[in-house]
Amino acid sequence: MSYKAPLKDMLFDIKHLADIDAVAQIPGFEEAGFGTAQAVLEECAKFNEGVLSPLNWEGDKNPSIWKDGVVTTTPGFKEAYKQYAEGGWQGLQHPLDFGGQGLPKTIGAACGEMLNSANMSFALCPLLSDGAIEALLTAGSDELKAVYLEKLVSGQWTGTMNLTEPQAGSDLAMVRSRAEPQPDGSYKVFGTKIFITYGEHDMAENIVHLVLARVTGAPEGVKGISLFVVPKFMVGKDGALGARNDVHCVSIEHKMGIKASPTAVLQYGDKGGAVGYIVGQENRGLEYMFIMMNSARYAVGMQGIAIAERAYQKAVTFAKDRVQSRPVDGSINASAPIIHHPDVKRMLMTMRAYTEGCRAMASVAAAAYDASHHHPDADVRKQNQAFYEYMVPLVKGYSTEMSLEVTSLGVQVHGGMGFIEETGAAQYYRDAKILTIYEGTTAIQANDLVGRKTARDGGQTAKGIAAQIEKTEAALIMQGGAAAKAVAKRLKAAREAFVDVVEFVAGGLAKAPEGSAKASLNAVFAGSVPYLMLAGNLVAGWQLARSLLVAEEELAAGKDVDFMKAKIITAVFYADHLLSKAPGMRDSIIDGAESVTALALDAF
Amino acid sequence: MSYKAPLKDMLFDIKHLADIDAVAQIPGFEEAGFGTAQAVLEECAKFNEGVLSPLNWEGDKNPSIWKDGVVTTTPGFKEAYKQYAEGGWQGLQHPLDFGGQGLPKTIGAACGEMLNSANMSFALCPLLSDGAIEALLTAGSDELKAVYLEKLVSGQWTGTMNLTEPQAGSDLAMVRSRAEPQPDGSYKVFGTKIFITYGEHDMAENIVHLVLARVTGAPEGVKGISLFVVPKFMVGKDGALGARNDVHCVSIEHKMGIKASPTAVLQYGDKGGAVGYIVGQENRGLEYMFIMMNSARYAVGMQGIAIAERAYQKAVTFAKDRVQSRPVDGSINASAPIIHHPDVKRMLMTMRAYTEGCRAMASVAAAAYDASHHHPDADVRKQNQAFYEYMVPLVKGYSTEMSLEVTSLGVQVHGGMGFIEETGAAQYYRDAKILTIYEGTTAIQANDLVGRKTARDGGQTAKGIAAQIEKTEAALIMQGGAAAKAVAKRLKAAREAFVDVVEFVAGGLAKAPEGSAKASLNAVFAGSVPYLMLAGNLVAGWQLARSLLVAEEELAAGKDVDFMKAKIITAVFYADHLLSKAPGMRDSIIDGAESVTALALDAF
Repeated sequence: MSYKAPLKDMLFDIKHLADIDAVAQIPGFEEAGFGTAQAVLEECAKFNEGVLSPLNWEGDKNPSIWKDGVVTTTPGFKEAYKQYAEGGWQGLQHPLDFGGQGLPKTIGAACGEMLNSANMSFALCPLLSDGAIEALLTAGSDELKAVYLEKLVSGQWTGTMNLTEPQAGSDLAMVRSRAEPQPDGSYKVFGTKIFITYGEHDMAENIVHLVLARVTGAPEGVKGISLFVVPKFMVGKDGALGARNDVHCVSIEHKMGIKASPTAVLQYGDKGGAVGYIVGQENRGLEYMFIMMNSARYAVGMQGIAIAERAYQKAVTFAKDRVQSRPVDGSINASAPIIHHPDVKRMLMTMRAYTEGCRAMASVAAAAYDASHHHPDADVRKQNQAFYEYMVPLVKGYSTEMSLEVTSLGVQVHGGMGFIEETGAAQYYRDAKILTIYEGTTAIQANDLVGRKTARDGGQTAKGIAAQIEKTEAALIMQGGAAAKAVAKRLKAAREAFVDVVEFVAGGLAKAPEGSAKASLNAVFAGSVPYLMLAGNLVAGWQLARSLLVAEEELAAGKDVDFMKAKIITAVFYADHLLSKAPGMRDSIIDGAESVTALALDAF
Repeated sequence: MSYKAPLKDMLFDIKHLADIDAVAQIPGFEEAGFGTAQAVLEECAKFNEGVLSPLNWEGDKNPSIWKDGVVTTTPGFKEAYKQYAEGGWQGLQHPLDFGGQGLPKTIGAACGEMLNSANMSFALCPLLSDGAIEALLTAGSDELKAVYLEKLVSGQWTGTMNLTEPQAGSDLAMVRSRAEPQPDGSYKVFGTKIFITYGEHDMAENIVHLVLARVTGAPEGVKGISLFVVPKFMVGKDGALGARNDVHCVSIEHKMGIKASPTAVLQYGDKGGAVGYIVGQENRGLEYMFIMMNSARYAVGMQGIAIAERAYQKAVTFAKDRVQSRPVDGSINASAPIIHHPDVKRMLMTMRAYTEGCRAMASVAAAAYDASHHHPDADVRKQNQAFYEYMVPLVKGYSTEMSLEVTSLGVQVHGGMGFIEETGAAQYYRDAKILTIYEGTTAIQANDLVGRKTARDGGQTAKGIAAQIEKTEAALIMQGGAAAKAVAKRLKAAREAFVDVVEFVAGGLAKAPEGSAKASLNAVFAGSVPYLMLAGNLVAGWQLARSLLVAEEELAAGKDVDFMKAKIITAVFYADHLLSKAPGMRDSIIDGAESVTALALDAF
C-alpha cells in the first residue's frame, strides 16, 4: 500500500499546461521557476511517501478517540505532524512576512495533492489551518495577525473553520451562535458547532478556531453573521499560552471514512462565554468565510484527485500481481495477471484518465490563481480572476464526484479482496465519500456555478472558455494525427453541448424577474449539477487535449517517448470514453428539466 | 430507518408487466394468480418490516464474531431465522414434494426483494440455501434428495456454495481442493475454501456445504471439477445428526459491509478428510454450479434493487424532514424541507427511476423463468429460456451497478449526516459494494453476455428483444400523449444504439478464428461491461415505457390516479436522464475500443 508521487505527470502539467515559467515572470515569484518546482516536489514526495503514507491505514484502524473532552489522535500522527511543521510545509504558499515560503499555488497545489494521497485524514489538519491563515491575512487586524499568523504558518498552532450548527448546514442563514460585545473590545461567544474538523486534537499546542456567530442585535439571515477568532488557550501579549478558553469538545463523530480526522462537536460558552476577537467588521463574516471557502474548496477538489491517484496506484499494483484466467486475445497461453484482461484495462484507464484530466484542470486553475493575485497588470489579474472563479466549483465538484467513481473502480479491480478491509482499497472508497459533501455539497458548488459564475455575467466567462477550447480544436486538426483528430471530434461535440447548456442556464435565469414567482428557475437548477459535471468533464478533457498537442511535439523531438505516448493514449481514452458523455448530458439538462420537478411531493 | 415494502409498485409490475394471470395458466401454478400474489406479498411485507428490518442496523453495529472455530451471529438473528423458517419463507418457490409452496418466481422474486431490503446480511443465508436446493434438485441422487432437501426447504438446515480458493476467484480452472473416492462410494474432501457466505453460524442445526473439488486423477482445468455435498454434522439414516464432519471455520473476514453475514474461511480435511457425497456425475461440477449460480445471480440482482429501494426510502424521509434554505422558485418564503430543492428532487428521481426500472426488468425476467421451466409448450419454453438467460447478466450486472449510484446518492441527500454511521445511509453504501463483485463480478457477467448470450446465437436473442422494443415505440407513438412521445424518442435512440453494439459484438467475435491469435476479441471485450450497461439501461427503460402505456390507460379509466401519474413521470424521467446516455455509450464502445488496450503494460 505504498504511495509513489506521480512527479512526472505533475511536472508535465506545471511546465506545459500551467506554464510555470510564465508564473515565474510575476513579481515575487522570480525564484519559482521550473527548477524550483522540481526541487520542491521531489522533497515533498520524499516526506509524504516516507512519513505520512505509512500512517494512512493505521489511521483507519485506530481512529482518533475522545475521552472526557480530550481527543487523542492515531499513534504516530503527533510525531508526523511535528515533522510536517518542522519541514516548513505548512508555510509553503504563505507570505514570507509571516515565516512562509511564498511559493505560487501552481507549485503548492501539487504538494497538496501528495499530502492528501499520502494521508487524507492527516492532511485535513493543515488544510483547515490554511483556511484560517487566509481569513486572517484577508481581514484580520494587525494585532490578530501579529498574535496568530506566524504560529499558524509555522504549524506550531492549527486552525479550524466553525460554520455548521445542527440546524444550519448548507443554510448558513440559520446560524444561531451568538457573540456579546465586551467593554475591552473582545466578545463572549456562545453556541454549539458541529462537524468541526480537527476541532480538538493533541498534535499542536493551540487551536485557533474561526467561528461564525451573530453579534447581539445583528440582522437576521446571512447579513447578520460575523467572524471571530476563538483560541483554545488564551494567548498573552508575549505570545505565551494562558488559561483554557471556554470552548470544549463534547464528542467526536463515528464516521464512514477519514476516521483518523477527529470531527468535533464544540460547545462554546458553557462556563460564562468563550473569549473571541472579531475578524474584520461586524456582519461581514460570510464574506470573509467565502475567502476561506474558496481556498478550501479548491483544496477539497485536490483531495479528490489525490485519493483517485492513490486508488489508481493500488489497483495497478494488484492487477499486475493477481493471476486469474487467460487473456481473450490468446496472447498468453496460461493464466495471466489480470491487467491483461480488457475490462481490467478499461477500469484502470478510466481511473487514470479521470485523475490526469482533473489534475491538469487543477494545475491550470492554480496558475490562474497566481496571476489573479500577483500579476502586475490589472486586466490580466481580472481575466485570470474570472477564469479561476469559474474553475473553483469545477475543481471541487467534478474532481470529487469523479473520485467516487475512481475509488469504486479501485475496489472493483480487486474483486472480493477489495471488500476486505485489510486490503486497503475499501478505505479509499469510504474516505472519498465525504469529498462531495463537505466545504459545500456538489449541489452547492453547482448553485455557485449557475448563479455567481454563469448567470451574473450572462455566461461570458463560460463562453470565453468555449472560445479557447475551439482554438485547441483547431490546433488538433492542424496537428493532423489520428489521435489529435479523434480527440478534436469529441472535444467539439462536448464544447457545443456545453455552449447550449450555458445559454440554457444564463437564459433561464435572465427570464426570471427578481422577486416574483420564478418557476423557470426550477428548470435551471434541476440541471445545475449535470451542468457542473458537463463543464468539468469538458475542461478536464480540454486540458488533456492540450497535453496531447504537447506530447506529440515532444515525441516528434524524441523526448521522453514512453511518457508522451502514454499521455496521448490517455487523452484519446478520455475523449472517447468520458467526453463522449457530453451530448447526452446536454439532452438530459435541456429536454429533461421538466421531469425532475414534476412529481407531487406526496408521491415520493 | 423503518422499511415499508413498495407493494403497490411490485403488484403493478406483477400484474401488468409480468402478467401473473398468464403465469397462472401454466399447469402447477393454477393457484398463483394475482390474488395469491397480493396475499403472499402482504404477509411477506409484514414479516420483513416487523422482524428483519429492525435488525439491519444492529447487524452492522454488532457483526458476526468468530471464536475458536465457532461463529456467533448478531443478537436477534437466531430468533429471527427461527421465525423465518417457521413461517415457511424458505420454501416459497421450492417444490411441494419437499415441503415447499411451489409458487412461481414471479411472486418469489418480489418476496426476495423485501427480504433483502429489510436485511441484506440476513437474507444471504436463505439466498445460499436456495442455491444448494437448486443444485440438489437438478443433479442430486434420490438418496441425497431424501436426506437433505426437506430440511433445507423447511429452513431447518442451511446451505452454502464453496467455489473460491485463495488462487481461484473468477478463474475456477485453478481450483485445487481434492476429493478421494472411498470404498463406500463417499469421498474424502481436502482443501481450503475462502469467502464462504454463512460458511459457519449458529442459526441452524446443520450446514450443508456444496463444494467444488477435483477427484483424484481428474483432468486439469474446469473439466475436472466435481461437486460434493459436505455436511457440517454427519447425518444418520434416520435423519438424526451425528458426529462433527472434518470441515472447520478457521476465521471470518473483516469486511466493509454486510458485516452481520459471516464470510468464512473453511478448512476441509485437516483431521483425515471431510466426508463428502458426489452430486451428479464426476467432472460435471461446474455445470451444476452454473445452475446454482444462475439462480444466485438473479437473486444478487434483486439485492441491488432491494438496497436501492431502502436507500431511496431513507433519503425521501430525510428530505421531507430536513429544513434548509428557501426554494429557488419562490414558492415558499421561508426555509423549507430540502425536498423542495430541484437538485434534491433530481437525486431522488434518479434513485426512484433506477429502482423502478430495474424492478420492472427483474419482474418480467421472473415471469420468463416460470414459463421457461413450466410452460406446456416446448417452443414457448425455449423462447422464454433464451429471453431469461439474456436477462440474467442484465439483472445481476445492471441492477447492482445502479445500486452503487443509488446508495451513493442516498448518502449525498443526507449531506454531512450521511457520512455519520448512526444515520444509517452509509451502511447501504458500504453494503452495496459487494454486489458488483460476488456471484461473478460485473465483468464476468459481461463476459457471459458477450459470449454465451450474444455471440453464440449471432445476436439473434438480442435483436429479438430490440424488435419487441420497436413495437413498444410504435405503441407509444400511437398513444400520442406528450409523455409517450418523449419516451418513444429516447427509447428509439437507445434501441438503435443497442443494435449497433450487438452487431459490433457479434461481428467482432465471428471474425475471430477459433484458436488463433484473436486480437479483434480485445476490442469486443473492452466494450463488454459498457455493452451490459447499455443493454440493462435499455431493457429497464423499455419496461418503464411499457409501464407508461399501462398507466395512461388506467389513468384514462380513472383508476389509481396519483400512482399512475407518478409512474408516467418516472418513466419520462428515466427516458430523459438515463436512456439519454445510450448513444454516448455506443460511441464509447464502438469508436473507443482501441484506446482501452493501447497503453503498454509498463506505462500503467
